[in-house]
Amino acid sequence: MKGYNIAVVGVGAVGEELLRVLSQTSLPINDIKVLARASREVEVEGRTYSVRETKPEEFDGVDIALFAGTERASELFAKEAVKRGAIVIDNSATFRLERDVPLVVPEVNPEDLDWHKGLIANPNCSTIQMVVALKPLYDRSRIRRIFAATYQAVSGTGRDAIAELRQQSLLQLVHSEEVKMTYAYPYRIAFNLIPQIGSFNDLGYTSEEMKMVQETHKILHDPEIKITATCVRVPVFNCHSEAVYIETEEKITAEEAREILRRAPGIKVIDEPSPLSGRSYPMPIDADGRDEVFVGRIREDPFVERGLHLWIVADNLRKGAALNAVQIAEEMHRRGLLGK
Amino acid sequence: MKGYNIAVVGVGAVGEELLRVLSQTSLPINDIKVLARASREVEVEGRTYSVRETKPEEFDGVDIALFAGTERASELFAKEAVKRGAIVIDNSATFRLERDVPLVVPEVNPEDLDWHKGLIANPNCSTIQMVVALKPLYDRSRIRRIFAATYQAVSGTGRDAIAELRQQSLLQLVHSEEVKMTYAYPYRIAFNLIPQIGSFNDLGYTSEEMKMVQETHKILHDPEIKITATCVRVPVFNCHSEAVYIETEEKITAEEAREILRRAPGIKVIDEPSPLSGRSYPMPIDADGRDEVFVGRIREDPFVERGLHLWIVADNLRKGAALNAVQIAEEMHRRGLLGK
Repeated sequence: MKGYNIAVVGVGAVGEELLRVLSQTSLPINDIKVLARASREVEVEGRTYSVRETKPEEFDGVDIALFAGTERASELFAKEAVKRGAIVIDNSATFRLERDVPLVVPEVNPEDLDWHKGLIANPNCSTIQMVVALKPLYDRSRIRRIFAATYQAVSGTGRDAIAELRQQSLLQLVHSEEVKMTYAYPYRIAFNLIPQIGSFNDLGYTSEEMKMVQETHKILHDPEIKITATCVRVPVFNCHSEAVYIETEEKITAEEAREILRRAPGIKVIDEPSPLSGRSYPMPIDADGRDEVFVGRIREDPFVERGLHLWIVADNLRKGAALNAVQIAEEMHRRGLLGK
Repeated sequence: MKGYNIAVVGVGAVGEELLRVLSQTSLPINDIKVLARASREVEVEGRTYSVRETKPEEFDGVDIALFAGTERASELFAKEAVKRGAIVIDNSATFRLERDVPLVVPEVNPEDLDWHKGLIANPNCSTIQMVVALKPLYDRSRIRRIFAATYQAVSGTGRDAIAELRQQSLLQLVHSEEVKMTYAYPYRIAFNLIPQIGSFNDLGYTSEEMKMVQETHKILHDPEIKITATCVRVPVFNCHSEAVYIETEEKITAEEAREILRRAPGIKVIDEPSPLSGRSYPMPIDADGRDEVFVGRIREDPFVERGLHLWIVADNLRKGAALNAVQIAEEMHRRGLLGK
């Protein structure tokens, strides 16, 4: 077997992470082509890639096209790439809720890959880490309700936002300067919180909050779950955290939940007695650069028989985006869905 | 009338804020005495106070003693001060749940001041801002359930923690140094989150999370409310934020909730259409140095008939501590409970 010809479309924070993840994949690769709005060179993990301008004909001969770009790149080129024979794994929100597009987290619903029509959508970062943690519990007892409050890092917005958090923080600390510059967000993010991710709908929910509802329904194949979320941007460079509360049909004790999650794929439970803090728990600085979804603060609700709390942390650029996309390709390879 | 002799016990972040708030109160004041572990001088708002060592006899002749110090100071001296004739308003957690100690937020349960026995407890910061926002809604319809996820600033830990966030952030940004120093918290807080405030109980809840449950029950006189919380420390200097979800007995629409809260004392609703962000909302940088509790992101749960979201932000040193304590004194003065 010769290996796959891969195209990576977009070289922002996620595109770069894709190249990093691809350098570690077990997937047989023949060639990696990098496409973006304009041609230039990028260096990732010591390897230099010449970036070519994204054009329809660039997808000829491509087996797998990983779209890490803007909604606009996906709108313009994803279906074109499929037409030219590529399997497209798209990180944008463009096609996620379309009926004939599987929305897949390999640990959760790999079987949805079997009915793909050339285009597979990668879910939103905050959804991915939540469903990875909830699926093993759902398999034990159906989940009726989910409440989530998120603490989302700036890397989810892109490289500009990372630079902005750094610059705003320095201005504030070193020059005691009132920060005026805001490119990535409508307001200052340094030493602040912005309770808005995406745009508002008529009900007052943001698009990020609605993604967590609609994508979770689709991935778990259960539109009956009552899901509600508040999504908040926090001054953390990388890794999203989520305070998630669920109500299950049957009672799952905290100890049983810990056991179930310890055995589950892609999860690391951090919830032990600890001399330093009384009890260990995951934090963004622990998850940075890691593949697992970290779960801690697992506890029952003393007032509600079937209520359970989880604290879920993951690297939003890796498991929340690039890693999940490559894992989709790996799973399709394993299932013989890539035609080689 | 000659005005009250006031003692402030403790000159940490809250003690200093107390002196600031006292410089703005309408309460008639004869003298302000500052007590702490060791004698020294402090300057607040351009005025210099000589701090004297806290001793039992220092409370002779004091009308109102505002304890802003450690649990230890309250344990050692609060009841002693009452014995010597002072009204004690205590900011520590020491006496909050005692049966004969009123736990008061003046906008919420001022009538509890009437049965005081000399000692009044000031609630925990995260509880105060939540009950200020919830009480007007509770008066419209009983609240059955409360879910809270908090985003708490380092100023709640004290002055050391403010310095630590600053130093850790600088080390990280300027020297790209792996931060080892942690005095205020078990782990680094700069560009990180710590999902632990206080110590853990056997069920895996932290003391801060339990305060939000037990203090809210006591203040609202309703131990039936099913309350559950996750409390998280965030890299913000000042002002706590909370994502709060409630279920009421009768449906309250988002628009009605906004109307109720706009008319309520001590609250400022920030929840309007906004050209900058689509919709305005409160943030920590807005609440800093302000007296009001700010509420936004008011929205109904599309899946649950009587579910309502709120985003609540307040200056935890002011309304969450010092201001509330002084407002208690002002309310007692109004009610003729201060004996002058």
